[in-house]
Amino acid sequence: MKPMDTIIALATSSGAGAIAVIRLSGKKAIGLADSQFRSVSGKQLINQKSHTIHLGHIIDGAKILDEVLVSLFKNPNSYTGEDVIEVSCHGSPYIQQEIIQLFLRKGCRIANPGEFTLRSFLNGKLDLSQAEAVADLIASDSEASHQIAMQQMRGGFSSEIKQLRDELLNFASLIELELDFAEEDVEFANRDQFQDLISKITHVLKRLIDSFAVGNVIKNGIPIAIVGEPNVGKSTLLNALLNEDRAIVSHIAGTTRDAIEDEIIIGGINFRFIDTAGIRETKDVIESIGIKKTFEKITQAQVVVYLFDAGSVGGNQSSVGRNQSSVGNILTEIERIKNKFPQKSIVIIANKVDQLTDTQKSNLKELIPEVLLLSAKENRGVETLQQKLLEFVNTGALRNNDTIVTNSRHYDALLKALEEIHKVQYGINSGLSGDLLAIDIRQALYHFGEITGEITSDDLLGNIFANFCIGK
Amino acid sequence: MKPMDTIIALATSSGAGAIAVIRLSGKKAIGLADSQFRSVSGKQLINQKSHTIHLGHIIDGAKILDEVLVSLFKNPNSYTGEDVIEVSCHGSPYIQQEIIQLFLRKGCRIANPGEFTLRSFLNGKLDLSQAEAVADLIASDSEASHQIAMQQMRGGFSSEIKQLRDELLNFASLIELELDFAEEDVEFANRDQFQDLISKITHVLKRLIDSFAVGNVIKNGIPIAIVGEPNVGKSTLLNALLNEDRAIVSHIAGTTRDAIEDEIIIGGINFRFIDTAGIRETKDVIESIGIKKTFEKITQAQVVVYLFDAGSVGGNQSSVGRNQSSVGNILTEIERIKNKFPQKSIVIIANKVDQLTDTQKSNLKELIPEVLLLSAKENRGVETLQQKLLEFVNTGALRNNDTIVTNSRHYDALLKALEEIHKVQYGINSGLSGDLLAIDIRQALYHFGEITGEITSDDLLGNIFANFCIGK
Repeated sequence: MKPMDTIIALATSSGAGAIAVIRLSGKKAIGLADSQFRSVSGKQLINQKSHTIHLGHIIDGAKILDEVLVSLFKNPNSYTGEDVIEVSCHGSPYIQQEIIQLFLRKGCRIANPGEFTLRSFLNGKLDLSQAEAVADLIASDSEASHQIAMQQMRGGFSSEIKQLRDELLNFASLIELELDFAEEDVEFANRDQFQDLISKITHVLKRLIDSFAVGNVIKNGIPIAIVGEPNVGKSTLLNALLNEDRAIVSHIAGTTRDAIEDEIIIGGINFRFIDTAGIRETKDVIESIGIKKTFEKITQAQVVVYLFDAGSVGGNQSSVGRNQSSVGNILTEIERIKNKFPQKSIVIIANKVDQLTDTQKSNLKELIPEVLLLSAKENRGVETLQQKLLEFVNTGALRNNDTIVTNSRHYDALLKALEEIHKVQYGINSGLSGDLLAIDIRQALYHFGEITGEITSDDLLGNIFANFCIGK
Repeated sequence: MKPMDTIIALATSSGAGAIAVIRLSGKKAIGLADSQFRSVSGKQLINQKSHTIHLGHIIDGAKILDEVLVSLFKNPNSYTGEDVIEVSCHGSPYIQQEIIQLFLRKGCRIANPGEFTLRSFLNGKLDLSQAEAVADLIASDSEASHQIAMQQMRGGFSSEIKQLRDELLNFASLIELELDFAEEDVEFANRDQFQDLISKITHVLKRLIDSFAVGNVIKNGIPIAIVGEPNVGKSTLLNALLNEDRAIVSHIAGTTRDAIEDEIIIGGINFRFIDTAGIRETKDVIESIGIKKTFEKITQAQVVVYLFDAGSVGGNQSSVGRNQSSVGNILTEIERIKNKFPQKSIVIIANKVDQLTDTQKSNLKELIPEVLLLSAKENRGVETLQQKLLEFVNTGALRNNDTIVTNSRHYDALLKALEEIHKVQYGINSGLSGDLLAIDIRQALYHFGEITGEITSDDLLGNIFANFCIGK
């Protein structure tokens, strides 16, 4: 460990609050705090036990900056593994700034993004994938993304990788040992056991790599295109989905021009509804702009929700039979989407079924068997829709508490590790000599090490921690 | 003390940060925390010492919500005087909400604005004026407002009021005692000493009441109207004032239509620059809209800064003499402002003096003796302007660390107390009987008590704490 300077940052969210927490970490943290803190008890922090809290004042010469609580963490029992001081002050931005400026003048340095967590990693308190999970945890906004980040931070992912790495390392050593006794033609590494291990590793790597698709969906949300003519009740449906779960909504400017996305969390999973409001307004040129835009949106989506107005098709006292041409249109449109996007899941919803008689409903069911009858206004069928949407997510892995990979850096390393393992497998099959086999094993080990941080570079660390917030 | 339920709130600013602090206070705080917190040490919080910090997990059944630090404060040694738990969790809004929701389900209640501080007051940890200072402290955005709030929170104001109240109470008791011995015609209360006390109280009350003008200015900033034609360099001047002090700026929608205010902190004092951009654009109707708007702005201001372009008056190789008509115009305008607002201070600034020769400068000085030569662009004369502006603030009281009243509730109570003290004085002078004198003294005591909170009502407390942020 290289000696490190003392860093400071606001640890809590910026802006005014009841309190704010300013964190110092490093060799001089306690000494600096003692020089600027006058405890009510009159005692020096340096003489106090770790994990204790002290009431007093932050002073700048004769001036009292604030009445604060100071929390003391002595190395190695702190977040960073260094001496850490947390100053809990009144939450005005003015006071926060004054206290930070004071400590900067006394010899602290403003922490870089993620520098506290970086030190935690460098001091062996967290491995690299755990450190990365800290940022994911802070960014998590749904139950699923939170759960995955928590699992990763608690070492679930690392321990699985580490165990494989240790077993592989063991075989690598045995095979390399054989090389020293090359002339005697001994086999320290049992080839059958080795084959079993390689199969196991291949299996685990494939599972982890596959989980990335789920992880990605959970991290970024599942994109759903809502397709339908204006006034079929898209907003009402979105609101009904919202109210059902008291979920968080936000309007995000989409990735494509004039697309607005509504984020709705259902059952802990983030769904991004890509609204196609405004399409098909020019009914005469049905094949032109409207359909083109709809297709663009569907391209981005994983699931298509096709919404139509049951009232206009089968309601208003008229029988569905008399409106079969409308149903025909709908079926044609659905067919067209299915043909163009055979791999996309599609949910067909008849909204406003409160305007239908029971006979009309069963007629509609007969004409479009997969239709989901729904009344967004009366909140009927909304729960069924939610369940249907959740079925599109492979929540199996989530439920089974399996490790899910969400980080593309890990994904890349896993892909590379698998590639090397394939080479090792090929080597075994083709009776490759031990020295060449060892090279491929070392390569696989390298990629495992990249994930947990046994193998790092300053560039890599710089990239990872640059995405953290300052103060973490 | 009435038994109180357990309250919870986010204590730090809302939004994402490295960490967030959630605070619980009340009888069940420790028990609730123990039921949802699994410490790494395996020990229960209830068995731990006050002012200690514990690492562990917040659990909801089998689910781990977060890895947290829990700080324990046992009554009466806490902010509220009750048992207090502070949960320091990862700073994602999702986690904050999940933890708060969990405790709400387990029997906490969301705290009302200022309820932690209210409890602190009700439990005798702070008097009312100290409690009010907590909100002022969090809202303070300049050195002066911060200093006044700190002084008030540390009891400077209360102790002065309390001492007067105690002395007055002593006399009230003596005078009331005399009433019991009315037939014997004794005087327990020395009338000379009493007269001295009343004089002293009158003096202190007057000083406190007078300080409100300063306090108000410090709390709300000093309004300054910048008057001048377009392009004389108003923005450059504001920027120069800013850079000089690395001060905080904000653009606030002013109180009148189309007025923009720039807040600049100079020497710890908040100045609000009311920009009069756009005035006088219609040169032909010089007396009309332009001047009217300027006058409106001046009405709101305490100081008028009159800015003109030295270059256009005396620069460009021409002598000031040849432009005397321009200088004449300026003098006329200044005269007009002075006549209309005889009580306002005015600072006359010739900007862009970098375009003048030394001779031109002294000519200008001769024609307008009080002119301040300044070059905002070259940052010359800016410091002189800052000092001039600071002279308009009576910082004497600030420097002498005198008590300054900033709270209009206190101001009202002081005015009423003074009124009653005047009645007492009149009573003494006119030989009023002890029983009538006692009534006036009790009234004065009542108003003193209103300030420190010995006299309160639920309505009053409700009004005061409603202005606090939640979590404080």
